[in-house]
Amino acid sequence: MIKNYFVYPLRVHIEDTDFGGVVYHSNYLNFMERARSEWFDELGVGINWQRQQGILFAVHSAKLDFLKPARLHDQVEVVTTITKIGKASIYFLQHLRQKDMPDRIFFKAEIKLACVDTAMRPKLLPKLPFLLQQI
Amino acid sequence: MIKNYFVYPLRVHIEDTDFGGVVYHSNYLNFMERARSEWFDELGVGINWQRQQGILFAVHSAKLDFLKPARLHDQVEVVTTITKIGKASIYFLQHLRQKDMPDRIFFKAEIKLACVDTAMRPKLLPKLPFLLQQI
Amino acid sequence: MIKNYFVYPLRVHIEDTDFGGVVYHSNYLNFMERARSEWFDELGVGINWQRQQGILFAVHSAKLDFLKPARLHDQVEVVTTITKIGKASIYFLQHLRQKDMPDRIFFKAEIKLACVDTAMRPKLLPKLPFLLQQI
Amino acid sequence: MIKNYFVYPLRVHIEDTDFGGVVYHSNYLNFMERARSEWFDELGVGINWQRQQGILFAVHSAKLDFLKPARLHDQVEVVTTITKIGKASIYFLQHLRQKDMPDRIFFKAEIKLACVDTAMRPKLLPKLPFLLQQI
Repeated sequence: MIKNYFVYPLRVHIEDTDFGGVVYHSNYLNFMERARSEWFDELGVGINWQRQQGILFAVHSAKLDFLKPARLHDQVEVVTTITKIGKASIYFLQHLRQKDMPDRIFFKAEIKLACVDTAMRPKLLPKLPFLLQQI
Repeated sequence: MIKNYFVYPLRVHIEDTDFGGVVYHSNYLNFMERARSEWFDELGVGINWQRQQGILFAVHSAKLDFLKPARLHDQVEVVTTITKIGKASIYFLQHLRQKDMPDRIFFKAEIKLACVDTAMRPKLLPKLPFLLQQI
Repeated sequence: MIKNYFVYPLRVHIEDTDFGGVVYHSNYLNFMERARSEWFDELGVGINWQRQQGILFAVHSAKLDFLKPARLHDQVEVVTTITKIGKASIYFLQHLRQKDMPDRIFFKAEIKLACVDTAMRPKLLPKLPFLLQQI
Repeated sequence: MIKNYFVYPLRVHIEDTDFGGVVYHSNYLNFMERARSEWFDELGVGINWQRQQGILFAVHSAKLDFLKPARLHDQVEVVTTITKIGKASIYFLQHLRQKDMPDRIFFKAEIKLACVDTAMRPKLLPKLPFLLQQI
């Protein structure tokens, strides 16, 4: 059985904050994407593989819950799992938590990525590498 | 009866795009927020009013659909309506459309804002000004 | 004689601010670029013209002075002038000021744009349209 | 003698790029700041220390050279040195280079930070911790 999760650490920097002293809401989506990209590299479906295949993964839809504000200088982690691989899409469950305090969750997201060609038209997923087949 | 919609025009600038030549997904959320802020000003519940009341509106949750990519230089409009005003929250339906082509919709969002105090704790909505009471 | 300045109004939104309650420093550069892009459109050298010519304008160097912090909700204006047009570059002087208070200047920038081809290699400027020739 | 440099690694993510496929110019400033913040932590003058002292470091001025475009997925490093510590300011020289290719430099910056109080008024530097005194 293959590990179906990826933990990606990051620090909240000034650029991520807004006048409320907390992470600006849309920046959580950026954090999620950094984590998915790094995991995709590990799984063998990173940007270079996508280019070889003539595809991209575009965010198709998302459901977001902003639970608790993360703040400047917080050490946090994005936890990502894949919940389903469809014919032309991949589904993720992700959350942002405090490092060393896994129950302190700032943000949760369900994300659906669609496989598209370089003109942004929907496309079936190519044959996936071994690791992703096992998930 | 009070007008329950607000149309906010904007241009897609280089900063909004990514390597795919389209608007980076989280930036749609920024567009939505600019529109809500401008409308809040018109309705009398802008940032200055919020400060007088000791409150902020924080994004609580969101459901996003990325329908079609908007591109550099596109003239677009955010259309915003309020779908419900709760005891401590306000619900919005928003979409981004091409200017002069109202059926060309790039992005749709359901957004729930929660009323919070300056320490980010939930708070009941203060008495709202006239215009918002009518919605 | 041709008008050699362009005034571009904008509002400071939440996304532009940081935890200090002021505009995050790099966002002033974004404001400058929005203004240059809009002026380029007026002058006939906007992104569509650039694409026809097979060129882009890339920021080559910049000198920035952060004079006074702009804050959330400020109504501001970017004032742009062209100081020199070289063989392969265009030089700008830009500043951000408070609307209706032209002496309240938040930020000043000297910006040099280089003309590059789509592979980002330096290129001589193409023949410029009438308006830019007069500057 | 104290080490007067700090190397901060980072990856270019999609959010950092623009429609040209390269890092959007103002984002280099963000990279510089992440690096300074992390080094400030190590040196004992991070955000928590600044808060105790009632100060912030605000970017006062900058000179930027965009030498070569960094691209999506590039593994890069910010190299930072302090060139001078004044009575109320700190001067930096920073550059962004390719990991494992220290001569491949994308971006260079001279940055002056001013010490300010929480109302953004200039302030003399407080007594600096040991490590910074040695630089």
